Formats: sequence, C-alpha cells, structure tokens
Amino acid sequence: MTIAPGRFAQDTAVTGGAGGRWQAEIRPGWDIAGNANGGYLLAMAARAMAATAGRPDAVTVTAHFLTPGKVGPVTIDAQLRKSGRRFATVAADLLATTGAEPPDAGGRPVLALLGTFGDLAAAGAGAGPAAFELVDGAPPELPPPDECSRVGLDDQFASAFRQNLDARLHPDDAAFMAGEPTGRPIVRGWFRLRDGEPVDTFALLLAVDAFPPTAFNTRLPVAWTPTVELTAHVRAQPEPGWLRCRFSTRFVTGGFLEEDGELWDERGRLVAQSRQLALVPRAEAAW
Amino acid sequence: MTIAPGRFAQDTAVTGGAGGRWQAEIRPGWDIAGNANGGYLLAMAARAMAATAGRPDAVTVTAHFLTPGKVGPVTIDAQLRKSGRRFATVAADLLATTGAEPPDAGGRPVLALLGTFGDLAAAGAGAGPAAFELVDGAPPELPPPDECSRVGLDDQFASAFRQNLDARLHPDDAAFMAGEPTGRPIVRGWFRLRDGEPVDTFALLLAVDAFPPTAFNTRLPVAWTPTVELTAHVRAQPEPGWLRCRFSTRFVTGGFLEEDGELWDERGRLVAQSRQLALVPRAEAAW
Repeated sequence: MTIAPGRFAQDTAVTGGAGGRWQAEIRPGWDIAGNANGGYLLAMAARAMAATAGRPDAVTVTAHFLTPGKVGPVTIDAQLRKSGRRFATVAADLLATTGAEPPDAGGRPVLALLGTFGDLAAAGAGAGPAAFELVDGAPPELPPPDECSRVGLDDQFASAFRQNLDARLHPDDAAFMAGEPTGRPIVRGWFRLRDGEPVDTFALLLAVDAFPPTAFNTRLPVAWTPTVELTAHVRAQPEPGWLRCRFSTRFVTGGFLEEDGELWDERGRLVAQSRQLALVPRAEAAW
Repeated sequence: MTIAPGRFAQDTAVTGGAGGRWQAEIRPGWDIAGNANGGYLLAMAARAMAATAGRPDAVTVTAHFLTPGKVGPVTIDAQLRKSGRRFATVAADLLATTGAEPPDAGGRPVLALLGTFGDLAAAGAGAGPAAFELVDGAPPELPPPDECSRVGLDDQFASAFRQNLDARLHPDDAAFMAGEPTGRPIVRGWFRLRDGEPVDTFALLLAVDAFPPTAFNTRLPVAWTPTVELTAHVRAQPEPGWLRCRFSTRFVTGGFLEEDGELWDERGRLVAQSRQLALVPRAEAAW
C-alpha cells in the first residue's frame, strides 16, 4: 500500500534539480488576496535547497521577500555553498517564470534565500555536552482546539488558504477578528495541516507564517505587515498531532517590527523558532 | 580638517566593486585564538553589500559561518537581487584568497550572506501608521562603565581583539570569568569602539557578536559555541556614546542554542536586535 502525499506535500513539490535548477508551481489555495503566503513559498524553496544539500531538514533558513508570489510556475535556483560532515549551506533564488523560458532565462525574483541543512534526528542524538538541555519557556496554554477560533474561514480573501490548514486562535487573542484588538501584540494558537497530513520540518516553515499578524492585536491601523525577511530555526522533527504556537512582538519602532514565533509539538518540545522583520505600511506602497 | 577613519572603519574597509567583486583584508587584532570574530567579518561583508546596494545601512543581514576567517586577503562577491524604492537586497559570499588569484578564481568560503539594505534615517521619518511605536522592553540597567568588568584584556587568546573594542560586563553576569557561572544564560554590558570611534550601523554588526557567549553562564562545559547563523536587524543609527547590550538564551535543545541580542543607544532607543543559532560542541569537531 502506498500513501498518497498530502496536499501540502503535493503543492510544495519540486522537480528537476540538474545544476541546482528546480521547477515548481505555486498552486491555487495558498494565497491571501492573490499573493502566495510567505511560509508556503519558504517551504517550497526549502525543499529544493534541502535536495540540493542532500540533507533531510532545514536547520536555519532565511528568506527575503522581494515581490509577491502568484499562482504559476517558478524556478528555484539553488547553489551549494559548503557541504560539511553535519551540515550543508545553500543559497537560492525563487523566480517566477512563464514556464516557457529557455533554461537559463531567469525570471522575476520573488524570494532570495540562504539556509543550512542537516539531519535533525542525528543532531538530537548528541552525547556529552550536546545532551545538555535548558528550556526557559513552555508551550502556550490553550483551550482545546474545539474551544478555539478557527482563523478566517469566512475571509473572502483567504478562504481556500484557511481550508488548506487549520489554525485556531486562543479566544483571548482572537477578538481582533471582531474588530476589538487586545492591545497586546500576541497571537497564540493551534496548527495542523488539512486531512491529518503530518507536519514535517518543511510544514513547520509554513506554520511560522500561517497565523494573522501580531499587529492585528495592536491599535495599528494596518491591513497587513509586509515581511522583509523571515528566519526560521528548526530544532526537531515534530511528533504527529497539533502544534502549539505563540507569536509576539515587542518592538514596533522606526517603521519596523519583529515578530517572534515559537512552535511546540504534542510532546511539549520546542520544534521551531522564527523571527521576521516586517514593515509598518505607510500610506503609500512600501516598495 | 579631515578626520582619519578609526581603526574599525579602516580594518573593515572594502575596495574595488567592479561587477560586485570587492577586496578586503582580515586584519590582525580582530581574532580570538586566530579565528576572526564573526561580527567583524559580518561588518566587513555588509560594507561591500551596502555599497553594491547603493544604500547606507544594513536593515537585516544574515550570515552563515562556513569556515574560520584568518588574517589575510578576502574577496566579497556581492550580487544585487532586487533594488526597490526603499530597499535593495544583496546576496554575497566572503571568500578567503591568497591575493594572487586571477579575478574569477574564487577562494575558500568563509561566510555566505544575504541582506536587505536601506536608509534608516529616511525609514525613521515615517508619518501615519509608520510613526506608531510600541516598546515592550528597556535597556538593561547597568552600573556605570567604570564599575563594570572589562572583558578579556588578560585573555591570551584575544587580548588584541579586546583592546580594539571596549566591552564591559555587568558584574552580576561576569562571575564566569572567575569560573563561577551564574546558571542564567544572560550577558549584559556596555559596548564602544576604541579611541571613541563612533558606532555606526556597521559597528552594530560587530557589537552583536562581541560579548562572551551566554553559554558561559550555564553549566555547559564548553570553551565556545560555534555560530551556524547570525541575523541582525538594525533599527536605527545609534547616537554617539556607549551602547547598552543584553544577550540571552532561552532554549538549549537538540545540540543547538539561540542567542538573542538587544542593543540600545545612549538615548535609550533600541538600535539593533540579533539572533544567532549556535552549536553545543560535541567532543569531536563540529563540522
């Protein structure tokens, strides 16, 4: 018996790879108002980068967001920078193409990326100093998923996206959906993929950007906070089940804000950290 | 009257730039036990990237550390990925060379980088939503610099480095220097450059990696924590004077740890945030 890949795995698949040049396609259903979600693009690019590295997991990956991703073909150009015993580092560009270009024609730059890849199962098996653990934090306390607010199913700009994943907000953080921000830029909630598809280390890269912006819980009069750069550190392969996620912002200054994420698995282990630098939009377009 | 550039500016200067190819030199006095400090290398590379971008400041820059930097010539290959109205994004590689290679011969990869550059003075002048500020935090409270512990002047492996900058630890965080870690992975202190050289946005990139590792205040039996990746967000040009810095670690898991930095200027403004992913060394070499 073979198990068909889930929708996330299918919709982030990459093919090719000769000379580090991968083909993929931004599929419908992963966008908000026509622009592909940043975490979805990051996961797709990271698949191509990991394959180029010959390693199963992203350990730390950074994406800079250059132009919006739209449904259609993309090329991911991935170049190995170093391949060591434990890790390999890859630089990449995700380019929007028409699908009909000659092989080296390039395309419109959507993401520029840099990441280090490895095998997290092996990394976690350290003895000696590497077995030392210190955890100053805990998964967010959340009511059961059924008592949380599913994000945005009625959002006309993102209903397909919101069906492809299942993000449920802590009721205390969800009042902005009714136009009543808490004033505290914190967003906590549950995350899983549709149809019980397992969350692998690539799906963690989706999860770090799948919740509403923390800014929605401030008095900032913004409809979104465009991401300049997002870095995710993956600590471990998650156990099957829901993730508990917490996103928070401490500093909105000079027209910028950071958004820090922590993702915890069902066993209560930290599986990923993220930080993005986002813009407070001006009245005019940001770029 | 002209003012000679300070030592940091001199020792991170880059020349050339045709086709994005810059020349620089890792100078003596910026190393710890023969390996150039990561923040020093980051600052040098960022100068070449900013010049390629045609923008004065790093806004967010990420470096992956591939091999140690040694005294001698380096090439920084910087490629513009996008140039927009407010920001420009540049990918780069810092390569160790002999200085005698033909122009395209490459070299040993030391750092791989990706950054977005802009003009922070202009960014801070936003009106409307961009003028909104929220600060959930404050500069660390520190005794006056003269009552803090200057780091490592007697460190035989880093005495020149420790003279090229002036990092002074909060006495509460300095006991590890006498072999008595606090058990709390926090390092707070003052930072300035030698001889009153002003701290510009490039020197902030030095400062984010210029203090002893937070791990020195844990019971981890390690002599260092090699950096895999470091990302710095620069929020503003600092005012002249000392920086107040705070570095902390919350999660040592799976053989990895993060180290988060906050840098504040004399006016009490947050001027930079940083996060690095570092390794807990195993008994054997890490790479």
